[in-house]
Amino acid sequence: MSSTVRRVGVLGARGKVGTEVCRAVEQAEDLELVAAIDAEDDIAALVERGAEAVVDFTHPDVVMDNLEFCVDHGIHAVVGTTGFDDTRLARLESWLAEAPATGVLIAPNFSIGAVLMMRFAAEAARFYESVEIVELHHPDKADAPSGTARRTAELVAAARREAGLGPAPDATSTALEGARGADVDGVPVHALRIRGMVAHQEVVLGGVGETLTIRHDSMDRASFTPGVLASLRAISGRPGLTVGLEKLLDLG
Amino acid sequence: MSSTVRRVGVLGARGKVGTEVCRAVEQAEDLELVAAIDAEDDIAALVERGAEAVVDFTHPDVVMDNLEFCVDHGIHAVVGTTGFDDTRLARLESWLAEAPATGVLIAPNFSIGAVLMMRFAAEAARFYESVEIVELHHPDKADAPSGTARRTAELVAAARREAGLGPAPDATSTALEGARGADVDGVPVHALRIRGMVAHQEVVLGGVGETLTIRHDSMDRASFTPGVLASLRAISGRPGLTVGLEKLLDLG
Amino acid sequence: MSSTVRRVGVLGARGKVGTEVCRAVEQAEDLELVAAIDAEDDIAALVERGAEAVVDFTHPDVVMDNLEFCVDHGIHAVVGTTGFDDTRLARLESWLAEAPATGVLIAPNFSIGAVLMMRFAAEAARFYESVEIVELHHPDKADAPSGTARRTAELVAAARREAGLGPAPDATSTALEGARGADVDGVPVHALRIRGMVAHQEVVLGGVGETLTIRHDSMDRASFTPGVLASLRAISGRPGLTVGLEKLLDLG
Amino acid sequence: MSSTVRRVGVLGARGKVGTEVCRAVEQAEDLELVAAIDAEDDIAALVERGAEAVVDFTHPDVVMDNLEFCVDHGIHAVVGTTGFDDTRLARLESWLAEAPATGVLIAPNFSIGAVLMMRFAAEAARFYESVEIVELHHPDKADAPSGTARRTAELVAAARREAGLGPAPDATSTALEGARGADVDGVPVHALRIRGMVAHQEVVLGGVGETLTIRHDSMDRASFTPGVLASLRAISGRPGLTVGLEKLLDLG
Repeated sequence: MSSTVRRVGVLGARGKVGTEVCRAVEQAEDLELVAAIDAEDDIAALVERGAEAVVDFTHPDVVMDNLEFCVDHGIHAVVGTTGFDDTRLARLESWLAEAPATGVLIAPNFSIGAVLMMRFAAEAARFYESVEIVELHHPDKADAPSGTARRTAELVAAARREAGLGPAPDATSTALEGARGADVDGVPVHALRIRGMVAHQEVVLGGVGETLTIRHDSMDRASFTPGVLASLRAISGRPGLTVGLEKLLDLG
Repeated sequence: MSSTVRRVGVLGARGKVGTEVCRAVEQAEDLELVAAIDAEDDIAALVERGAEAVVDFTHPDVVMDNLEFCVDHGIHAVVGTTGFDDTRLARLESWLAEAPATGVLIAPNFSIGAVLMMRFAAEAARFYESVEIVELHHPDKADAPSGTARRTAELVAAARREAGLGPAPDATSTALEGARGADVDGVPVHALRIRGMVAHQEVVLGGVGETLTIRHDSMDRASFTPGVLASLRAISGRPGLTVGLEKLLDLG
Repeated sequence: MSSTVRRVGVLGARGKVGTEVCRAVEQAEDLELVAAIDAEDDIAALVERGAEAVVDFTHPDVVMDNLEFCVDHGIHAVVGTTGFDDTRLARLESWLAEAPATGVLIAPNFSIGAVLMMRFAAEAARFYESVEIVELHHPDKADAPSGTARRTAELVAAARREAGLGPAPDATSTALEGARGADVDGVPVHALRIRGMVAHQEVVLGGVGETLTIRHDSMDRASFTPGVLASLRAISGRPGLTVGLEKLLDLG
Repeated sequence: MSSTVRRVGVLGARGKVGTEVCRAVEQAEDLELVAAIDAEDDIAALVERGAEAVVDFTHPDVVMDNLEFCVDHGIHAVVGTTGFDDTRLARLESWLAEAPATGVLIAPNFSIGAVLMMRFAAEAARFYESVEIVELHHPDKADAPSGTARRTAELVAAARREAGLGPAPDATSTALEGARGADVDGVPVHALRIRGMVAHQEVVLGGVGETLTIRHDSMDRASFTPGVLASLRAISGRPGLTVGLEKLLDLG
């Protein structure tokens, strides 16, 4: 039986989000920050300092190496880094098969608002002919579309399939390349990069004569931290791979 | 076990709403319009043409006769006609007791978007410190705020009470009269009257660092048809009497 | 010296927009509808019936043939059909060089709201690091992005160049194809196709800590007709090629 | 002929706002921070280090001495310090009369977005039957509606009067108290107080079949820096006294 995590390491500790995570872990009475690691540091410090779990907000280029190290050493991981596709998830699952007590959470977004947006979008999807996603972020973001937008699209697409809905209507015959967005599982996703924005997403659903729009605005990085702390508290009880905060917190 | 409805009759087929319903049924790939009946036509045609369900947008004077005929013949009914009181509902239930496989839906409003907006707002309410409602309508509307906005505020207020939330934070000490909106059960509601608008509503919820906005735009009176079609698809799985679209669609 | 147009032909007369244009021309006291022509009709009727100007809301595939005919016969044209690029505009200008008294207006949008949106976007552009355009239309639209969106992007791009602004910041290094929209003169443009929408556009501008959004919602085709009528009244005084309602109406 | 400012000094350099200004000047490629001066420093450093312009966010007690020094030495000034009355402005003008090439800007607000929103709203007002204002702020704000919303309403009301427009249409006959907002010069203004919001405003204009919405979102206090930088770039071309950012940027 797993014990609750106490000793926490943070990867990407000097990034903008990582800094907030470090502060939040330090302020949490039931958690202890034992390792704050960034690009130039040796990840082996996690083992030396006895980290039981890590939080990873790094970069798609390095996150797989980080997670291989953690799973190898039985360290749980709560991951906000984006860029996970089926290939990456399959590799993670194969590593976890060798470490049955270790848990990894991949969550594209740690805010309750994002989780509600995704859940409402998926629930509404079966009632609407059309659905598209617009996400707006600051221009320093590396990936497009965001992990949250991709996840939302997948959930919406699954709900449409289950309801027997075919492709959304689209009579476009003349288009500039890229105008109709990225195709994620049949759902068009549009990514804006705008200075001044933080993290925002809109799911637009439409049927005859009416539309429903669900919008989430995250205006401060601090909005992620409650979801991260709750995940650290829950991860040891959830071995294997979990995708989505809603699954870990029984909100989905 | 009930099979899904395919053959549909429309009562009140040449009325404004009935005409839209006929068109929508004809365009739906999984449904077939087998009888378009109005005041001067014989309702018996429903049986001759094998209607499995009817849509009734007629008149309080004739709807009970229509429904008695339908229930007698095991034909499901989706009803938008008004004028149902407890006495009428009780009579309907007594007829349905004799026809246990037959379903009747009585719905005052077939806008799926409005139903979803209210439900999502109520569900999200417990997670947020603040919530306010903005509704926007054409300037010929007589009442402010709209009935939908008042109903949404009541549902949101009930959810907050159930979650043990107190009043939303508000440090306003100097205000012009009316600036903070109407108070509906503790929820501020703001009504705009703008030429060019049809019927629109936004529920704005907010917590530390993030907000969630649920918006419904009704741009055309034909917006009731998707709710009618969804009801036709669901009615055979819901024998007995159902009052309210949200109940039939498991959204209540 | 040109005389004011009285006798009007409509091309695409049985299309949705064309039907509204026919009605508006018939109701205007100073104009006469002499030819309502659609795909199956012979365009030569314009000459037989003495049309002095046409309104063309047809399709990118046929509009160039229509305009060649009109210019050849000295008939002014007010054109709402989309799909004009530099090649097409150059061809039009070469035809008009042979017909110095004839005027052609190419206008991606005939609503005053769209004109104001474009003008405000162009005026604000020099103050913001980032700018992108989102347009939302019904799913029966043939081209993406809309003519209005392309025109807005071009105006915004010109304003940025004039102000000496370089490319907008964008650190995207991993992207799904299409996620960042179409590139129109360096401005990303995103096109949504949603059942229930009519014609909507949002220009999003952002700088450090703040964003400015200019949104135009056209919810009824009738919103085009005042701009079309005003154009018919002005076109004979504006020989040659004019692009944009704002130019014709001195709003730009 | 004046040359564009390159070498910048900051007065009040270690205050909250001054610190942000220093950072912004340092990051701007076309500007150089040559002197960061606070209360204990000698203002003569401005001359030694060749400052061509200063930004002053200091205190009403010292700003006049600062400006006398700057004007004496031909240094342009961009001033966010408060406390200017007619007497002070007259003294400034008398100093500037002796230094005809030097420019001083006194601006109570450096948010370009707020200035643009107000100007566009006023400009569009004459084209629309209806206009209302919605402002959304954090719940710790003391006044409702905000000063910006009141000012916008006054500008819009003046533009409507000038265009000969009467009251906006409103058929409301049954209303809850406050539902239709506060009346500012005939323009309804609605104030929302939502946790997670910073400072946001939307001006909604509508006519037959279409609406135009101008929205400003201020998500960070650093949002004043682009206005300061734009002022530094414009000030050498605007000798004499200028009051208000909109005047300097030709937006008034």
